[in-house]
Amino acid sequence: MSKFGSFPEKTTRDLFLEAFRELRASVDKGLDPEAIEAIYLGNYSSDLFEGQGHTAPIIADWVGLTPRPTMRIEDACASSGVALHQGVIAVASGLYDVVLVGGVEKMTSLPTERVTDVLATGGDVLFEIPAGFTFPGFYAAMATAYMHRYGMPLEALMQVAIKNHENGALNDKAHFNLTIRRVMENKLAKARAQGRSLPSWADELEFLQDDLANPVIAWPLRLFDCSPISDGAAALLLVAEERAREFTDEPVYIIGSGQASDGALHSRPELTSLRAAELAAREAYEMAGVRPEEIELAEVHDCFTIAEIIALEDLGFFPPG
Amino acid sequence: MSKFGSFPEKTTRDLFLEAFRELRASVDKGLDPEAIEAIYLGNYSSDLFEGQGHTAPIIADWVGLTPRPTMRIEDACASSGVALHQGVIAVASGLYDVVLVGGVEKMTSLPTERVTDVLATGGDVLFEIPAGFTFPGFYAAMATAYMHRYGMPLEALMQVAIKNHENGALNDKAHFNLTIRRVMENKLAKARAQGRSLPSWADELEFLQDDLANPVIAWPLRLFDCSPISDGAAALLLVAEERAREFTDEPVYIIGSGQASDGALHSRPELTSLRAAELAAREAYEMAGVRPEEIELAEVHDCFTIAEIIALEDLGFFPPG
Repeated sequence: MSKFGSFPEKTTRDLFLEAFRELRASVDKGLDPEAIEAIYLGNYSSDLFEGQGHTAPIIADWVGLTPRPTMRIEDACASSGVALHQGVIAVASGLYDVVLVGGVEKMTSLPTERVTDVLATGGDVLFEIPAGFTFPGFYAAMATAYMHRYGMPLEALMQVAIKNHENGALNDKAHFNLTIRRVMENKLAKARAQGRSLPSWADELEFLQDDLANPVIAWPLRLFDCSPISDGAAALLLVAEERAREFTDEPVYIIGSGQASDGALHSRPELTSLRAAELAAREAYEMAGVRPEEIELAEVHDCFTIAEIIALEDLGFFPPG
Repeated sequence: MSKFGSFPEKTTRDLFLEAFRELRASVDKGLDPEAIEAIYLGNYSSDLFEGQGHTAPIIADWVGLTPRPTMRIEDACASSGVALHQGVIAVASGLYDVVLVGGVEKMTSLPTERVTDVLATGGDVLFEIPAGFTFPGFYAAMATAYMHRYGMPLEALMQVAIKNHENGALNDKAHFNLTIRRVMENKLAKARAQGRSLPSWADELEFLQDDLANPVIAWPLRLFDCSPISDGAAALLLVAEERAREFTDEPVYIIGSGQASDGALHSRPELTSLRAAELAAREAYEMAGVRPEEIELAEVHDCFTIAEIIALEDLGFFPPG
């Protein structure tokens, strides 16, 4: 995995090369790129972000994998997750034994306003975007519906932000390596150094409730409820079970995988759960023969704090509300 | 398959709906959409052409296939071919028995100059496009290299155009339904009706050699050597062998399929053959257990007349030159 952040000097291909190099270095018994038979690359929009389509062969060439079969898989925020699912299917088909799965996005090449426009192309361009929807707007609508239906307080969103920034601070690949407490302390120290007066927030919650420190982006979502515009890439190697030990003595097994889709937000019967996530999870659980309560660790889509809350319910870890 | 042409009033989703409806009507024993388990959609750039990304779920919803798993596959001009290859892999994996494979492009929503820019994103945006390359430019370079290497006369390209327009005239789905002879006769009739004098071309070759009737786009490629900017969609149903007879008594079997990639044009050791096409064809022949000389019908990528000539050699139907 590459470092995530804002890297004006890097292109999509540079980021993926970084992830691929680290993947190679991480394979216990070494990885000869010649062993890779196909590349599945998740990417939302290198064409809109940096004017480069034909993305997969360009990147495969950059990392030295021409003439292997390769393609870009586009499924909005789920692009790389679906690339992984397709890689699993490809290995299951028997056509390939060793598949490289990657995900990459280089988003900071445009000004923020244009990035917002690009992300809005993930909405329904006939019916939603002309009405003024942006991606924070979509999730704000879901958060509002959730608050209305279940009486969720705003503090619940803030608790997610506090916990996720604590996790980010533990990961040196994360775009933001700071807990919210540290962000708060840094702001106070800076104000003191400049002789400015700043509110002395009692804790992170008070900090997050401050309209100046944490401005509203799309109500009820504030700055720290929203994921940043980031550049980064990830890569992993999928190997058929019978060949895994050529690469490591400690393989990680994929025992379930699922995928589903949903219509545009305006056409959904409700906004407080994501049917595609529910169905995909059910498929993966059935394939794996496990129940949600047996899961010890989950990484969920948390583009906005409300997304994580809804995902935890869609995956069956908590009942609705 | 939809009608191909220029349809200002249609969107990508309308075109695919047209293809899907015709697919349904073509299934002898009827197709209940409920039977479809996944959708593989080839599309180069609905995001650049009409500002709509997240393309596959949007289209799946439009034709009534939500919540089936679906994704857009982007591999430049090969997008839909690769979608078919991935559909075959998916059925082979055993995860799905009934898969819808589609291809769609809506290109006429932008002015021609912008369409040329969009297609250029299929080239290498770091090294080729800033040097002035466009897609006709890429194939013009290949045609020039081919003429230099094998002494091909310009008439060879024109013969391909004449033959392909004759085939187009037989297909009421084709963008251009006219033979070149008919185009020529229409021009003469119009000139006579308007009292203008026009050269009386002896045959199609003389017509195609006329700089006014068939202007140079990127030498040696002229107007009738280039594919038009078109809107259109296609859809087909892939069914596991053991279930095919639920849908028809006359299934068509896919006995081989292959895929490969290549680097950007400027990094290739030669311009007169396409290594990706050669390797993909070899893979498909081996899988099928057939030799090129056993093939009775081939549909090849003929975006430009030179592309067809090179493809016929890459597929092993003729020796180089």
